Amino acid sequence: MSIRIGILGYGNLGRGVECAIKHNPDMELTAVFTRRDPAAVSILTDTAGVYPVSEIGSFADKIDVLILCGGSATDLPAQTPEYAKLFNVVDSFDTHAKIPEHFDAVDKAARESGHIGIISIGWDPGMFSLNRLYGNVILTEGSDYTFWGRGVSQGHSDAIRRIDGVRDARQYTIPVQEALDAVRRGENPVLTTREKHTRECFVVAEEGADLSRIEQEIKTMPNYFDEYDTTVHFISEEELKRDHSGIPHGGFVIRTGCTGWENENSHVIEYSLKLDSNPEFTSSVLVAYARAACRLHAEGQKGCKTIFDIPPAYLSVKTGEELRKSML
Amino acid sequence: MSIRIGILGYGNLGRGVECAIKHNPDMELTAVFTRRDPAAVSILTDTAGVYPVSEIGSFADKIDVLILCGGSATDLPAQTPEYAKLFNVVDSFDTHAKIPEHFDAVDKAARESGHIGIISIGWDPGMFSLNRLYGNVILTEGSDYTFWGRGVSQGHSDAIRRIDGVRDARQYTIPVQEALDAVRRGENPVLTTREKHTRECFVVAEEGADLSRIEQEIKTMPNYFDEYDTTVHFISEEELKRDHSGIPHGGFVIRTGCTGWENENSHVIEYSLKLDSNPEFTSSVLVAYARAACRLHAEGQKGCKTIFDIPPAYLSVKTGEELRKSML
Repeated sequence: MSIRIGILGYGNLGRGVECAIKHNPDMELTAVFTRRDPAAVSILTDTAGVYPVSEIGSFADKIDVLILCGGSATDLPAQTPEYAKLFNVVDSFDTHAKIPEHFDAVDKAARESGHIGIISIGWDPGMFSLNRLYGNVILTEGSDYTFWGRGVSQGHSDAIRRIDGVRDARQYTIPVQEALDAVRRGENPVLTTREKHTRECFVVAEEGADLSRIEQEIKTMPNYFDEYDTTVHFISEEELKRDHSGIPHGGFVIRTGCTGWENENSHVIEYSLKLDSNPEFTSSVLVAYARAACRLHAEGQKGCKTIFDIPPAYLSVKTGEELRKSML
Repeated sequence: MSIRIGILGYGNLGRGVECAIKHNPDMELTAVFTRRDPAAVSILTDTAGVYPVSEIGSFADKIDVLILCGGSATDLPAQTPEYAKLFNVVDSFDTHAKIPEHFDAVDKAARESGHIGIISIGWDPGMFSLNRLYGNVILTEGSDYTFWGRGVSQGHSDAIRRIDGVRDARQYTIPVQEALDAVRRGENPVLTTREKHTRECFVVAEEGADLSRIEQEIKTMPNYFDEYDTTVHFISEEELKRDHSGIPHGGFVIRTGCTGWENENSHVIEYSLKLDSNPEFTSSVLVAYARAACRLHAEGQKGCKTIFDIPPAYLSVKTGEELRKSML
């Protein structure tokens, strides 16, 4: 029997989950829930329906896992604990500092209802976190480095759009090659914010806007840009559409460290991602962990889990025997 | 209380485990067991003893995990099931084709005795297997690539040493840069053995030996060299000692694949290792999984496990709360 998935929220992430389900033959999309008018939401899957979120309660027995595709600022802190009362849930909550608090809220709800809630799934937090953990337990004496990019930062793009005279904008976060190289050579550099990443902005200005004022406002914006070397390019709306409509991202997690009685041997562990579509990759990770949620629940487990708690084999459609034969 | 570790077999791997224990403050080395005369084995840890393997039975209550540091050809197939009767055990069994058989033997012994046996731990099998699994569950439609090197292959070095007229030799396996680059560009190349790796040999010949005959014998050796482009360098014993006494290794696991409703977006996941000391890195992984073995046993679990079955959090000395706060 297929694993029946529900999606709450049909933006880039929700659509990505829908696509990922198509790539996993043991799963099916049952329903998409939206706060918009369902008639205005057109999905790709013929066999699934679109429902107002107010009807979600009647799906408690029709869905094995609900994947929450809202934002971390206001949606998920409320939704994940709320829906863990009715469903096994998986989310991509990515406000690192608030994860402990979110974990506790989801854990309480999921324990009471006997469900599984898996939080903060994706690539960072997610696969990058996992690689930080594996790197640290193997090379216990060493240094951690995480670089992001080259990729589009939604938050930084939005910040530029709020500047007076800006019609649209796209911001790329770019790792500094020299810093990456020094880390890979095992030099254990201590890197400032400026030394790790640069920021490149493509901006469509309103007609007649003061471009040098806009550039200045971007480069000096506190927290977002002031600590970075930032480049600003003014381009036309057509160019933005033509060259910058994708949502690529990626990055690097590197652990360097020593072994030996006197720390005489050095090692470098590197994990990297190069993603054409940030939301579709995140969605693909979410769907694999939905499979794990379903299995853990079937075993009678309950409560909140993170990527650190899930045995890798639970993610795969293959049996343990098949995995040992084909991948070990 | 510390996790008390025993080591069976004190070669490069056993010594590496001893060093790794020094880097993990929650562990202590209790005993090294050897088939040699214990008086002839000098270890680094003041507080541990060296014992003949015949006395190992009396340590059943003094050791939490026994790490088996023998070879996969003849030692581990017998030792791991044998000692799973008395101890929680961890091994680095690396004969890929025989893993299912080894798993069954260890599982039977460990279930009967109520212990945990974790097999095939290291980097390949081990961390590379794990990355093949994670890559496959995320990018369900795609291609797998594993490259090894640049590193010393013990088996190939030994094969050269058996040639008449060869005093000593060191063989390096080297990934072909063009192949790696094509994979990283997402071209999904179909690669022959020759296109993936080259082999470089440093040979010390006996005085007066026929060098061109030796070179010919190496390059045409079935299975070991005949399917590869091989380079042979004749060097002096001093040069071998000076430039080739290390045991470096490493490699790359790459998963490429597509997402999207019509597979319209491509992604590349890459995991790589650059290791100064192959045995010390393998040992460091073994020790992390010894911690997991100890915890699983304390929970009342039993039987054989592989790297696919262990929740990552079990590897770390930190609590779940600490991990969520510091690494997620």
